[in-house]
Parts: sequence; structure tokens; C-alpha cells
Amino acid sequence: MPRRSAVATETAGVQTWRQPPDLALTPILSHSLDAFCETGYHGTTVRDIARRVGITVPALYYHHQNKEAIFVALLDVSITRVRQLCEEALRDAGDDPAARFLNLVECLVLYMANSTKIAYLDHEFRVLSPEHRKSYSDKRRDVERLLLGTIQDGVDAGCFDVAAPADTARALLGMIQAVATWFQPGGRLSAHSVALRYLDIAAHTVGATPEVLRRVRGGARR
Amino acid sequence: MPRRSAVATETAGVQTWRQPPDLALTPILSHSLDAFCETGYHGTTVRDIARRVGITVPALYYHHQNKEAIFVALLDVSITRVRQLCEEALRDAGDDPAARFLNLVECLVLYMANSTKIAYLDHEFRVLSPEHRKSYSDKRRDVERLLLGTIQDGVDAGCFDVAAPADTARALLGMIQAVATWFQPGGRLSAHSVALRYLDIAAHTVGATPEVLRRVRGGARR
Repeated sequence: MPRRSAVATETAGVQTWRQPPDLALTPILSHSLDAFCETGYHGTTVRDIARRVGITVPALYYHHQNKEAIFVALLDVSITRVRQLCEEALRDAGDDPAARFLNLVECLVLYMANSTKIAYLDHEFRVLSPEHRKSYSDKRRDVERLLLGTIQDGVDAGCFDVAAPADTARALLGMIQAVATWFQPGGRLSAHSVALRYLDIAAHTVGATPEVLRRVRGGARR
Repeated sequence: MPRRSAVATETAGVQTWRQPPDLALTPILSHSLDAFCETGYHGTTVRDIARRVGITVPALYYHHQNKEAIFVALLDVSITRVRQLCEEALRDAGDDPAARFLNLVECLVLYMANSTKIAYLDHEFRVLSPEHRKSYSDKRRDVERLLLGTIQDGVDAGCFDVAAPADTARALLGMIQAVATWFQPGGRLSAHSVALRYLDIAAHTVGATPEVLRRVRGGARR
């Protein structure tokens, strides 16, 4: 059965990792995202989604095989975007290990704050069947590995003090992902100011040298 | 309508914050916890729960008003236990600010690792009606305030370096709560060893002095 591309083509334009364009989800994915956020994966039916979109269930099945396929498509849009933004943030940082780590933290916090809904789906990824779960877990692990790489490089360069880099990377990702659970778009704190605070917190977490901490507090990355 | 106590009486015995007795949930709460963990709040019906317990729906309603009341009872058991363990951990630490902070972190990590299922319910607390949500949020905030208090005391005593204590407390709680999402009981790492690693990570996060860090790595609390 033919399936259209899950994500509409993004409009061309300036794309930076700090201010990426909106994800431009198809109407089906956009309404599905709302449904999953409001009633969870198990509490959402294909019928609910079709009603929200304003199409029939058979029309929905023309685009997506089943509910799981929609959920997989959303998770995939999210993790693919995260990965792409992280790579841009790393390129932008150049070779300095501390700058690479800090850009990655900023990039991840901004994503969690600017994309609370789709980022929050991650907490349900264990509902997936083994095959899809493995595929998503592998992509998630790639992102964790990017962060771990910057921590390890910082330790090797003598600018970080970390006893267990892998645990620290996982702990930091947990800390950063939690932003998607409490951040209120349009609230007291902007995504930018949350990111700045988390830079300082994360720099401490990896035992950054006083010189790196001064750079963070002074707003300079290199 | 009369309702029995949600939690069975705990057997008397040695109770420490490091090795607390099991929560001793009633059969209804225990099966409800399984259901909520497997299919989420919205994906669970009162009928599902009654079937798991092996009772009729009316019999279930004799004990709990509705699905939300069961969810509230479980969240309440969890947050009450966390609060009680945290207070014991603080008492056990005496007056030293670093020891108080470290005991609290250890206590919270152990809870997340030893009670993954009930601790994980927290991520769905926003499904509650405003009144119940407020009541639970207040209790959650009390725990956050305990952690914030130890961070603030450590800053005042000169043993921590934290730019924004409230953000750091929230960030640390996010980091610690994430343990409930990935910890595998009986897996490669014991709850105890995860707690030890998180002590080191958390001590860095609050910018602990080298003297405090040495105490953490050496296994001494004071």
C-alpha cells in the first residue's frame, strides 16, 4: 500500500540549530501527536485520530499501517531532528571539547523546551514492539553517544573531571529530558534562559575547570 | 460509602531509609499499579483492574470511588513514602550540609531504583483533575524544597557553588527521577552502586568543594 512521506517538505531558508524551523508535521501526525499527549498511547485509538483529522478510518489506513506505525513515525521525526540539530551544534563548536559539550547541552535543552509535546513522546517508547523499540533505542543511543563523546574528550583534554562518563551522560540526558515535562512555552522563563541555566548546571556536573565555568558564566563559549 | 485504608499495615521491624520495608499495597492497588504501568492511565479501565484482582466492578467501587481515586491513592502512597524516607535520611545526616545533601540524593536514587513501577507513575500525574493535581503537586514540591534547602545550606556554608539553587534542585530531581525509567532490578548495576555513582555526579552538579568530593569518592559522608 503506498504511503506518503510522514513529514511535509520543509520550506527552504536559514536553518540554525538554535532556531530550527518548525517540524512541519502532516495533519495526521500533528493530530496524532495531540492525541498521544492528551490520552497516552494506549488511551488513543485510530478512530480518535481519524475523527481529529476529519477523515475516515480507511483514509487514515491509506497513509499509515496502524497506530504503532503513526507513533513510530512521530518518534522518528523527533529523534532524527534531534540528531541533525546536535550534529549542527557540534560542527558550529569547532574542535574545543568544552565548546562541543556546551553546544550539545544547549541544543538538547532548546529542543526539549521548544518541542515539549513531541519530545515528551519519548517517555512511552517502551510501548513499541521489539523491532521498532530496538530501532528507536539505537537512534537514541546515538545521541547519548554524541554527548558521551564530548564528555570523554573533555576528560582527556583535562577540562572536565568525571568519574564515570557513561553514567554522567545518561544522568545529564535524564536531567535535560525532564525539561520537556515542566517547561511552559510563553511562561516566566524563555527556552533561551533555561538553556543558559542548564549550561551552568551541566558544566558543574562534568566537573569543568574554573576557566570553563568562567566562560559559561560570562556567556563566552570559547 | 466506607473505604478501607489504601495501604495495609506494615509489619513492625527495623526500618531504615536505605532499606525500607516493601510498600505492602492492597491487592487492588497492586494490580492497579501493574495495569497503569502496562497500559497507562487512559488505557486502563476499572473493568481491567477488577478482572486482574478477580473481583466484580461493584466490589471494586466499594473500596475506591473511581479510577482516578485509585491513581490518587497510589501516587499518595508513593509521595508519602518518599517524603518519610527523605526525612529519615536528613535526620541520619545530622547538621553537616554536605552530608544532608548527599543523604537526600542517595535516598531519592535508591527509591527510584527500588520502586521503579510506582515511582514511574509520577510522569502521568497531569492526568489528575485540578484539585487532586494541586494536592499531589504540593507534596512533590515539599520534596523538592527539602533538596533545595540542603543545596542552599551548602552554598551558605561555602561547601557548594551554585548559581541558581532552585533550577539546580529541579534539574537534579529530573536526573534522579529518570533512574526509574531505565533501572533494571536484578540487572548489571545494583541500586546501591547506581546511588554511589549519582552521589558523585550530584556532588559535582552542586559544585562541591574538593574536600567534599574526596569524601564522596572515599565513601565517607562526614
